[in-house]
Amino acid sequence: MSAPPQSPPTRRVAYSGRRSLVVEAADPVAPPPGHVRIDVAYTGICGTDLHIYHGDMDSRVHPPGVLGHEMSGRVAEVGAGVEGWRPGDPVTVMPLRWCGECPACQAGHTHICHRLVFLGIDAPGAMQSSWTVPAETLVRLPYDLRLDHAALVEPVAVAVHDVRRAGLQSGERALVVGGGPIGLLIALVARRSGAVVLLAEPDSFRRSVAEGLGLTALDPRAEHFSETVDRWAGGAGAAVAFEVSGAEAGVATAIGALATRGRLVQVAIHPAPRQVDLHRFFWRELTLVGARLYDRDDFTAAVGLLGEGAIPADALISRTEPLDRAGEAFAALESGAGVMKVLIDCRASGEAR
Amino acid sequence: MSAPPQSPPTRRVAYSGRRSLVVEAADPVAPPPGHVRIDVAYTGICGTDLHIYHGDMDSRVHPPGVLGHEMSGRVAEVGAGVEGWRPGDPVTVMPLRWCGECPACQAGHTHICHRLVFLGIDAPGAMQSSWTVPAETLVRLPYDLRLDHAALVEPVAVAVHDVRRAGLQSGERALVVGGGPIGLLIALVARRSGAVVLLAEPDSFRRSVAEGLGLTALDPRAEHFSETVDRWAGGAGAAVAFEVSGAEAGVATAIGALATRGRLVQVAIHPAPRQVDLHRFFWRELTLVGARLYDRDDFTAAVGLLGEGAIPADALISRTEPLDRAGEAFAALESGAGVMKVLIDCRASGEAR
Ligand SMILES: [Zn+2]
Ligand SMILES: [Zn+2]
Repeated sequence: MSAPPQSPPTRRVAYSGRRSLVVEAADPVAPPPGHVRIDVAYTGICGTDLHIYHGDMDSRVHPPGVLGHEMSGRVAEVGAGVEGWRPGDPVTVMPLRWCGECPACQAGHTHICHRLVFLGIDAPGAMQSSWTVPAETLVRLPYDLRLDHAALVEPVAVAVHDVRRAGLQSGERALVVGGGPIGLLIALVARRSGAVVLLAEPDSFRRSVAEGLGLTALDPRAEHFSETVDRWAGGAGAAVAFEVSGAEAGVATAIGALATRGRLVQVAIHPAPRQVDLHRFFWRELTLVGARLYDRDDFTAAVGLLGEGAIPADALISRTEPLDRAGEAFAALESGAGVMKVLIDCRASGEAR
Repeated sequence: MSAPPQSPPTRRVAYSGRRSLVVEAADPVAPPPGHVRIDVAYTGICGTDLHIYHGDMDSRVHPPGVLGHEMSGRVAEVGAGVEGWRPGDPVTVMPLRWCGECPACQAGHTHICHRLVFLGIDAPGAMQSSWTVPAETLVRLPYDLRLDHAALVEPVAVAVHDVRRAGLQSGERALVVGGGPIGLLIALVARRSGAVVLLAEPDSFRRSVAEGLGLTALDPRAEHFSETVDRWAGGAGAAVAFEVSGAEAGVATAIGALATRGRLVQVAIHPAPRQVDLHRFFWRELTLVGARLYDRDDFTAAVGLLGEGAIPADALISRTEPLDRAGEAFAALESGAGVMKVLIDCRASGEAR
């Protein structure tokens, strides 16, 4: 029996248990009706992927779980009944599936569906050269947006959502507590919305990246940090603070910086309850707003920002590793030293950008 | 030398140090320009007055500090330059003085002025038969509103403010955590706004008062409390929770009851930081809103509610004591047993209601 015609060999990165990843061959999945198969170009590694890698999410991610939810690629195959997409179309994926029936969905907040399925956590993700997904999850990319830059659409959508939840107005002062990729993107999106932005980040490399983007960055552990923030805010305090650190100290920094009627947007995940100065919320009539993920409008806005060149993607992408070196890429990100965003090049062959 | 014509003797209740009050004679203060002297009718005792009595606010209240900020009375004397007021006019007082210059005032939030002076804490209060105040603090009462009922205007204004900060919509489910006077008033104002209200209160006397007003009241320590709240909220959770208990457990109860995108209004004072489940704020995109005091619109609305008979004042006023028995009144309130709101009758003589 002669061999059938072959696609290029495809591979995937799978979580195989605490601190263990395997790169293995995987056959492309032909798209069932309503689905599309994507040739993945780039997939970013996110803090959540690191949590999974550390075994902290073993209740949701079972080996061999394919990681990754920040991606770009091109449509490769279109399943029955799918309209509007053709092979070669550049795309990203909004990695959410919702039930449509729970109270959150019924209230129109499908992105926080009580039975949300997050692709890359609860279902196979994008860290593979071929990914088959429901057609409704596709988001169109402009042809002239570089696909490595487009792998940032998902985190930019997070930042867009957070800024929108803040109700940020032009001219307002916004403190961003935490200068990792999401914190930096929030700072950039807030600045583009007309806000006057200050970043608080203890890590000097992260501060230097922020400063390279024209942002003002301070070490919150510095002696006169509070006085400096107070001066920056003209003695009134910040209108908005984004808590992106996930640390109890970050919460206190954010609350302490807020003006009367200021808004604190809770972006980071706090795995344990935190000591919170509720008296300050009462005394100054502060507001705390939880912000999670994004909706399709946020995704579209994020594509627009990247398409306009409003996000300095090259400055944020510290390195790009081929899929075979995913383990090294995770290790580099884990060390944290000198690394902002790391992408995995998932292309099966040496396709040009 | 013959004695000049005398007003009736006037007296006052002054804080004279931890757990000590004195009732003493005090001359009426002739109103300076822009001020009005009031013959006080009734002054309610508030939780804040108890805190002062316990010595917990010695940094703000120095002996002999005259307590009281929930009151009613009649204009007695009008100072130079005051227009629109005549002796005999029934009034209450919005007990706030603000600077007009701080960032909060400049932003229009004068009730949370950074240099707020609260009459009855930072300046002499209403627990005296004659009280002289700036004319701008006066709020007109309808002639047909009983003056004992009118002593509830201030706490009703708190409740109006809290419900307004919640953005409460008709038909929404609202959980009120804490069934003291403010919690009950919030429940009543929320119900009048069309909300479906549930009260959580461990004290059986308070629950019985609430039930007497047609409210549903549950003991949050009861075995199936969470399930009952969940059923009441149709499995979706409450749209709004008011935290009026001041206890860490109350915060957890409120957060646990909220629906996706639910709003928690922080009403009570928490003297220490509290453990707060910030992950829940993130996960369900909850909002926490601090609410403090009231503005003039809230006061006017509160007068309107009492004037319409929408607040069952008689059911809330547990007892009324003459000024001479202020000490006993504080002791009764402190014991907490079987007492909701206690009024001090401050009238110098036996003036009819
Ligand atoms: Zn749902
Ligand atoms: Zn002020």
